[in-house]
Amino acid sequence: MDVHNMDGSIDPDDVAKAHQADLSVQGAHGVDYRSYWVDEANGKIFCLVDAPSAEAAATVHREAHGLVADEIHPVTEGR
Amino acid sequence: MDVHNMDGSIDPDDVAKAHQADLSVQGAHGVDYRSYWVDEANGKIFCLVDAPSAEAAATVHREAHGLVADEIHPVTEGR
Repeated sequence: MDVHNMDGSIDPDDVAKAHQADLSVQGAHGVDYRSYWVDEANGKIFCLVDAPSAEAAATVHREAHGLVADEIHPVTEGR
Repeated sequence: MDVHNMDGSIDPDDVAKAHQADLSVQGAHGVDYRSYWVDEANGKIFCLVDAPSAEAAATVHREAHGLVADEIHPVTEGR
């Protein structure tokens, strides 16, 4: 799970475009950006990503649109 | 999406038990704790919850086990 802390409010259309860019780039890195959630008013984005490493996940964001996450947390999904 | 910042590492079994307690309490509040993700080593938990309000989501955690989140972000899921 990564977390982006943006300054101020954010446009969900911009986030959707960035996510599409991730999807177009991720295959070369063995990464799968599965879901994301946007807090528009507070400028926060959470991305759930399957990746071989945090660095691989960050590389996809960097290549796709340059907006790397502020935090990346290795997580397991609860049951 | 809520975020819990625990001190130190956490046992995923403890989180699973807390989640089960949420599930047993949430119906009375119109809340649905859908998924959660645990960063064991760094003591971070993300809970995705459908709720009529942030306060309703917090009330379920409070009644179920007392461990309320440090942050609650109203989010929309990306497409």
